[in-house]
Amino acid sequence: MNFADRLHAATKELGNACLIGIDPHLDMLPEQYAAARNVELPRHVRAAAMGDFCVELVDLVAGRVPVVKPQSAFFEVFGADGHIQWERVVSHAKSAGLLVVGDVKRGDIASTAAAYARGLLAGCGAAHEDAHLCDAVTVNAFLGEESITPFLNVCRETNTGIYVLVRTSNPGSADFQLCGDPTLSERIADAVNRWGKDLMGESGYSSVGAVVGATHPEALAAMRERMPHTPLLLPGYGAQGAGAEDIAAGFHKGGFGAIVNSSRGISFAYKKAGRPCSEWREAAVDALDSMIQEIGAVAHAAV
Amino acid sequence: MNFADRLHAATKELGNACLIGIDPHLDMLPEQYAAARNVELPRHVRAAAMGDFCVELVDLVAGRVPVVKPQSAFFEVFGADGHIQWERVVSHAKSAGLLVVGDVKRGDIASTAAAYARGLLAGCGAAHEDAHLCDAVTVNAFLGEESITPFLNVCRETNTGIYVLVRTSNPGSADFQLCGDPTLSERIADAVNRWGKDLMGESGYSSVGAVVGATHPEALAAMRERMPHTPLLLPGYGAQGAGAEDIAAGFHKGGFGAIVNSSRGISFAYKKAGRPCSEWREAAVDALDSMIQEIGAVAHAAV
Repeated sequence: MNFADRLHAATKELGNACLIGIDPHLDMLPEQYAAARNVELPRHVRAAAMGDFCVELVDLVAGRVPVVKPQSAFFEVFGADGHIQWERVVSHAKSAGLLVVGDVKRGDIASTAAAYARGLLAGCGAAHEDAHLCDAVTVNAFLGEESITPFLNVCRETNTGIYVLVRTSNPGSADFQLCGDPTLSERIADAVNRWGKDLMGESGYSSVGAVVGATHPEALAAMRERMPHTPLLLPGYGAQGAGAEDIAAGFHKGGFGAIVNSSRGISFAYKKAGRPCSEWREAAVDALDSMIQEIGAVAHAAV
Repeated sequence: MNFADRLHAATKELGNACLIGIDPHLDMLPEQYAAARNVELPRHVRAAAMGDFCVELVDLVAGRVPVVKPQSAFFEVFGADGHIQWERVVSHAKSAGLLVVGDVKRGDIASTAAAYARGLLAGCGAAHEDAHLCDAVTVNAFLGEESITPFLNVCRETNTGIYVLVRTSNPGSADFQLCGDPTLSERIADAVNRWGKDLMGESGYSSVGAVVGATHPEALAAMRERMPHTPLLLPGYGAQGAGAEDIAAGFHKGGFGAIVNSSRGISFAYKKAGRPCSEWREAAVDALDSMIQEIGAVAHAAV
């Protein structure tokens, strides 16, 4: 089954379209994982403490949401030791039945993009070492179509997917993404549509998705129309300010067509809830319950 | 000394502005390193064979050129084992006296960009584990100014630099980078100018550089004028088709203001020269001699 169909099936089975971001900001980790911040400790020990947190977070959300999205930057803080933890967390999430979208935002010229696609989605050729591969990754199309084509080829070959950055959720997204008429974001959206045609699933969606920030509700509605068969990844819900009503326009009937990301809003819910860090798990589960309910209500109301 | 001044001093001392890209394409590695391609071998053994090649390449160019530019994608093919080799190659190049520009093209929202900046340029805080950090990295500004600011902060703190993608060398660069009027590339160039003001060196150049493909000579001349204090990184020379005359417009008087990249043109020169792979080192040195002479003549003729 291709990525689009696997995502569709998982969303249907669990009855929600929630995506939990795994962004282990060192300074927000609960005290139990403070070893990750201790510069006196060897790097691999610190990285492992961060990895422990991520694995526990995965266990809290497994079976409840269809997808998780680890962010490579926080792992790369620890260099190669962080990369070992990245592979540990991705493998753990997959064996817990979760789909994994690697948030890596890679983008480069054709031959280089092919190496990224292989490293992240296909592996280097030895089947027993592939447990750490992602089901999909985020990509940056700034270098043009030739930077995406190698990913499309690997997606076809390995039943994986990509989410192309179209309009990001951050305030700075307006600096360059709204340049031109049609805007840069609109041009990329049209390309995403085109790129996706050859990777359609039986669900009616393509394995070529798009990242569209939930923080721009008017743009989101226009993008949903512009890319009718594209699965959307909506960042910005929760910590970045978008509410449930802001994401409604991203969904098709039945609650399909989009997944909604929350990272800090779940993993570090204990901070916002004013609970002791010893209760970070309970706070995360409570926040997840609310999110599932809130997103579920909006998604199922979609027409 | 900040990055701009260190680069200026190294260019002056060696009398050339050549940048050697370290892009270990698995299928182009000489037979002596064929273990890297052997899917029967454990991943770490394969990665080490690739690393051996890179280390030898570094030794061939050390003392002759000011800078090398390893490409992260080719290391990431081997996951965490590739990352270990990345750190080995970067450390080796630095201890051989070379400046290292990590070609990673990262770009993300502010808090995430800060993690990338730290991981690549500042490290996680333990001084003895910092041998693998880059002197500068390439970055992608698609997410806007807030995706660059964290890099600027780290550059200031650690005397490192960035090269922002402005106009890439590949054919596909026209797909999105020429969108709008002023074009996306021109808008980013103006931002690069502004971002660089606070990171000026005594050499008259900033530590905020720009990537401008040598494959667009007319655009290069316009970009050189548009960003008068910005050190340029010019990809596209050699294998991608740009000749010495195409890069002339990138230089200021005395041969400063730009560095010219060649990757496959040096590392895999044995292929183009039709020499046996046992002579890859000699072929690389011959190609390097030609490049130094050719680029030197152009750079020193700049007015």
